[in-house]
Amino acid sequence: MSATLLDGNAVALAIRSEVRPAVDRLTARAGRPPGLALVLVGDDPASHLYVGSKLKSAGESGLFADVHRLPANASLDELLTLVDRLNQSPIHDGILVQSPLPAAMGPDAERRVFDAIAPDKDVDGFHPLNVGKLVQERATLVACTPSGVIELLDRSHIQIAGKRAVVIGRSDIVGKPMALLLLHRHATVTVCHSRTPDLPAVCREADILVAALGKPAFVTREFVKPGATVIDVGTTRVDDAQTIARLFAPGTKRRIAFEKRGALVLGDVHPEVEEVAGALTPVPGGVGPLTIALLLKNTLRAAEARLG
Amino acid sequence: MSATLLDGNAVALAIRSEVRPAVDRLTARAGRPPGLALVLVGDDPASHLYVGSKLKSAGESGLFADVHRLPANASLDELLTLVDRLNQSPIHDGILVQSPLPAAMGPDAERRVFDAIAPDKDVDGFHPLNVGKLVQERATLVACTPSGVIELLDRSHIQIAGKRAVVIGRSDIVGKPMALLLLHRHATVTVCHSRTPDLPAVCREADILVAALGKPAFVTREFVKPGATVIDVGTTRVDDAQTIARLFAPGTKRRIAFEKRGALVLGDVHPEVEEVAGALTPVPGGVGPLTIALLLKNTLRAAEARLG
Repeated sequence: MSATLLDGNAVALAIRSEVRPAVDRLTARAGRPPGLALVLVGDDPASHLYVGSKLKSAGESGLFADVHRLPANASLDELLTLVDRLNQSPIHDGILVQSPLPAAMGPDAERRVFDAIAPDKDVDGFHPLNVGKLVQERATLVACTPSGVIELLDRSHIQIAGKRAVVIGRSDIVGKPMALLLLHRHATVTVCHSRTPDLPAVCREADILVAALGKPAFVTREFVKPGATVIDVGTTRVDDAQTIARLFAPGTKRRIAFEKRGALVLGDVHPEVEEVAGALTPVPGGVGPLTIALLLKNTLRAAEARLG
Repeated sequence: MSATLLDGNAVALAIRSEVRPAVDRLTARAGRPPGLALVLVGDDPASHLYVGSKLKSAGESGLFADVHRLPANASLDELLTLVDRLNQSPIHDGILVQSPLPAAMGPDAERRVFDAIAPDKDVDGFHPLNVGKLVQERATLVACTPSGVIELLDRSHIQIAGKRAVVIGRSDIVGKPMALLLLHRHATVTVCHSRTPDLPAVCREADILVAALGKPAFVTREFVKPGATVIDVGTTRVDDAQTIARLFAPGTKRRIAFEKRGALVLGDVHPEVEEVAGALTPVPGGVGPLTIALLLKNTLRAAEARLG
């Protein structure tokens, strides 16, 4: 038996094809397109890639988007001043500050910056006011990755209500909002983490298992009840040949890709899970594309709410 | 075997005996005691009792507290004006609006009033900003009942880290904040509700079972793993003689109390659970007294934060 692969690219495309006409209607009504400010601090190559990809996707959906850059040695105050200016900007409905910030800004820089973004422009859904409204089931802006997982489940016709869902990982950005969204959709939800004894046994209770712990190939066959839906939120770049050799046999597509590029992006779910799960998100091409699609949707929502 | 009864009154007394000297120190330093505004709308007899009890407890802890009354036919605007005045008041550090509000105020009146309370005076922990900070593990003011449960577990030396906790009920006021607090204390947490299939089996996984669903005696023996800690958050006034006769044999203390008073306050946990659980909170005298103790502690915290 081999799991049905849940095609994140197709679902992301479907969402984006719905966002586009709504953006066009709002643009016609408001006299300007919904606007997204992307803030990029420093020279992290991955951050540059992510921001470039978000900029391109926003353009394709008819949004206005621009990138606001600060040098790697910018101070936290300079960044907060920029955020404040974007909060006041009439043409920006959403503000996204790309993580991670340079370490020199201090350990609580991200928290202070996310707190400074106006809640009605917080398209990442990280502001505590939006998180509180999520708990109270009345949020307009919810973190993109967990919202994307719900969209993926819905559009793949996987029932959530009445099912047992297990989330591995309790981060503010994925684990906790994921658990809340599943709970509001009437799943019985368990949150597991590094301090959970006998993690595989707890995970085997799941009809829907969400892995968001950031440990490549950690979730093996013994974590998965046969037929369960497995959502892999992990994305870790692995360049260790031994790890790759252990996971992918010679001649397989991914092994060949590794040999060509010298690295692979791996999820938290071991390849062998495909033989046990009923449905599974691949990495790449699973949850990843949904995160950007939901960013576009959140920008549209923010603009709709701001423009009334 | 009979469960150890967890004495909420004793733990509440211990907390209050710690609050008192801290209040006195703050009063000496600030030149005024921490102040708590209790807002009471209408004539609900239970609300009058609760507010009276909070007023008395606050006084005993050295807090300043006063009651602000509005008639049952007051408008929502009048109530919001009062809340706004209390938000500005220099002598009030905490504001508590007693639930329920008169039905005539409309279905979203409570939500609008709780949203209007200044987050730094929100001693109930119901404002979405405080709820979001709870999720992010940095809240000063957290809902009193779930915070009280954590205090009770800690002071009863019941380990939370590494244990499986199951919460029955997903309310904003108890279930969800309870689950978050247990998760932050490193329990593996499951939230169950009316849509959970085979609820008893899920609950039997719990080392710590928290019942917060508001259905008297619903949690029977089959819900409880032998030796588990059972926390009963329910308090429902029952005046139906048949229900009481089914639960309490003639001549038992509670049966006699019912025959004298014509009603009993029952928890969500069936009396037979005492034979299975390792530890159990009684109703009354379990979680109830902690809710008020934590209200006093939250008022102290709010004053400390406001006075710097």
